[in-house]
Amino acid sequence: MTLLKSWVASANTDATDFPLNNLPYGVFSTEGTPRCGVAIGDQILDVAALEAAGVLTLDGGPYLQSGAWNDVMAAGSAVWADLRAKLQAALAEGAAEQDSYEPHLVAQADATMHMPFVVAEYTDFYAGKHHAFNVGTMFRGPENALPPNWLSIPIGYNGRASSVVVSGTDIVRPNGQLKGPNDELPRFGPSARFDIELEMGAIVGQPSDGMISVQQADDNIFGYVLLNDWSARDIQAWEYQPLGPFQAKATATSISPWIVTRAALEPFRTSTPDRDRELLPYLKEPGPMLYDIDLEVGLTPENGRESIIARTNYNEMYYSAAQQLCHHTTSGCAMRVGDLLGSGTISGPDKENRGSMLEMSWGGKEPMTLETGEVRSFIEDGDTLVLRGAAQGHGYRVGFGEVSGMLLPAPEVPDFAR
Amino acid sequence: MTLLKSWVASANTDATDFPLNNLPYGVFSTEGTPRCGVAIGDQILDVAALEAAGVLTLDGGPYLQSGAWNDVMAAGSAVWADLRAKLQAALAEGAAEQDSYEPHLVAQADATMHMPFVVAEYTDFYAGKHHAFNVGTMFRGPENALPPNWLSIPIGYNGRASSVVVSGTDIVRPNGQLKGPNDELPRFGPSARFDIELEMGAIVGQPSDGMISVQQADDNIFGYVLLNDWSARDIQAWEYQPLGPFQAKATATSISPWIVTRAALEPFRTSTPDRDRELLPYLKEPGPMLYDIDLEVGLTPENGRESIIARTNYNEMYYSAAQQLCHHTTSGCAMRVGDLLGSGTISGPDKENRGSMLEMSWGGKEPMTLETGEVRSFIEDGDTLVLRGAAQGHGYRVGFGEVSGMLLPAPEVPDFAR
Repeated sequence: MTLLKSWVASANTDATDFPLNNLPYGVFSTEGTPRCGVAIGDQILDVAALEAAGVLTLDGGPYLQSGAWNDVMAAGSAVWADLRAKLQAALAEGAAEQDSYEPHLVAQADATMHMPFVVAEYTDFYAGKHHAFNVGTMFRGPENALPPNWLSIPIGYNGRASSVVVSGTDIVRPNGQLKGPNDELPRFGPSARFDIELEMGAIVGQPSDGMISVQQADDNIFGYVLLNDWSARDIQAWEYQPLGPFQAKATATSISPWIVTRAALEPFRTSTPDRDRELLPYLKEPGPMLYDIDLEVGLTPENGRESIIARTNYNEMYYSAAQQLCHHTTSGCAMRVGDLLGSGTISGPDKENRGSMLEMSWGGKEPMTLETGEVRSFIEDGDTLVLRGAAQGHGYRVGFGEVSGMLLPAPEVPDFAR
Repeated sequence: MTLLKSWVASANTDATDFPLNNLPYGVFSTEGTPRCGVAIGDQILDVAALEAAGVLTLDGGPYLQSGAWNDVMAAGSAVWADLRAKLQAALAEGAAEQDSYEPHLVAQADATMHMPFVVAEYTDFYAGKHHAFNVGTMFRGPENALPPNWLSIPIGYNGRASSVVVSGTDIVRPNGQLKGPNDELPRFGPSARFDIELEMGAIVGQPSDGMISVQQADDNIFGYVLLNDWSARDIQAWEYQPLGPFQAKATATSISPWIVTRAALEPFRTSTPDRDRELLPYLKEPGPMLYDIDLEVGLTPENGRESIIARTNYNEMYYSAAQQLCHHTTSGCAMRVGDLLGSGTISGPDKENRGSMLEMSWGGKEPMTLETGEVRSFIEDGDTLVLRGAAQGHGYRVGFGEVSGMLLPAPEVPDFAR
């Protein structure tokens, strides 16, 4: 596929994340209530206004009036396809709809972005093999790096939906229980090993009740976002046995404001890697269900300039989101519209491909030097972390924009906690 | 306190869970839409109808028209107190309101109960010391039974809100990945070690954003339910390292249909036990925040009669719900109206006080003999499990009713999983 031309001039370049091929879904405001919009070039098409005006109509609608994309998700795949087809036709070069659509464009520079959907529940996985191997090596040595179940199960745990925030939201360093390996007792105070995790988030667009196949799971995924699973490593180390991470992961989970639909990513499908151990039949994929998406992490110290501290690709995952969603339903677990599945940290094979600072600095033993000459093992107050991602086509790209967050100092420990 | 007399005759006895002292909140239907009701004796007061008719008015209302108690919770503690005071006055012996209220009574025998509230998110804790010690002993021996963090942290993990169902809902035995200790590879099939966990559930009635104290946490709790955290032990054993239980706990979580308010439980407050290790200041309780609630578990084989297989008390918990909720907020985790916190399995010191069949049968090594002569290590298809609970006053009790569920056979493994 090549670049599809639009009458929105800024969309007709390989420098934009948002050509006509993409058309990601977000929620924006200029003044007043947040409303559903679609990115095209450097503009946002106010589809809520178009639907309210009767210019854009969808079977069984309205679906675009709630300030969230959940209603569209719940409407099902026929509506998903119809909306995308209508928007691609109306925004195409030479389209007769230009006159009626053009008044509903808003410059992205003038808009504030909001959460694109209501998160029903949030599940985070641990499905990147390089990440699991790196973390396992640090804690248990290379011989025992991967847990025995890792090659059979897309390991996941339930996260906290209330932690999910949109890109641009400031992140406050958490307090928590901390106990160093040489401390006799824990103390309460600010996390000193606060970290990112570079992930993709898959959004469940259709409900299920009972076990579904990998193919059905893929069909039920509405789209993808970039996801930063902020993690307090020192809180995690003390709390996570035996029932998994809890407060270490509850401070915030940032997502990109634009949902890139599965349809937009179709040209970039790729397969999960060869298996080190044969999967059980239910987890086998009938076709390629990963995507070739280049990813990078930038770190900007306060009043400094950005260093790119990692480059990797979503195709490094061992398990696809479809496999994860399928596994999620094995016990009969009901899935709902708006469930968010974090991929797990996406690290590649080499040092520059690591998706967490825990791995980049090897647990703090090998601090990184930034372009400014500053040194980092974990995030410092005032640092802004940005994840970016895009699938690269011929002369165009399908991008996610970015997910950014600045770390603010921890709140003062309250009197009742001293 | 003694029994408060009502003009509803069936409420004036120590044989009912629902005297005027209690007034728990549920959602019921006879025909048509589920609506908010309050239990009194063997009746339900249709408070939704009373509010709609203008007989019962609450400041800032209506709050009782959505078929769930979340609106009342969100209204805050002044409304909680006002509603309880108005109902206790109107239902009291000799009340002038009898004429206007009596037409809105429905016999519990004629009603179907529904979920009493919309669960925002569900967190399950592991805060019963006898349970943690028993399970730890089975897996690691008595010397290493309690994890090192256990005496410092109310250990919890995020559960799956979509798993929560009301008492009476049939439970379907899950399929899952299973790998016995002597198996080389896992297989996919029905759980053979399906279990209960006897717990109390605390319902968060007010939101918080940032860390709150134990006292504030207690103030934010709207009420309590009985909770059965159905657990597939064999799925759990293979999946839970390193990130905790996932599909083992996602099949179902049953709760009692009646929310017993914190106000109704006030006379039964009791303290958590002496500490084996001093708690960090933030976790110290300014007063008694547990409750003296007798609990029991009944098992009825299909077409058989019930055996009581455990008796224990909520006062066996090491951490209160207020301590758990406080800890939940340490990282800045936002809590929401309708969050549900499971206490963790409530086992007492003796063999007959164990709150899970895993403990009762000591991992299957010591099967129990039921009154029918049948033998159980874990739940068999067709078994009905019932939890009951009540706080015992002088000449009255404040009860929760029961939470019951029958286990149905596992679904056939689908073709794509063979």
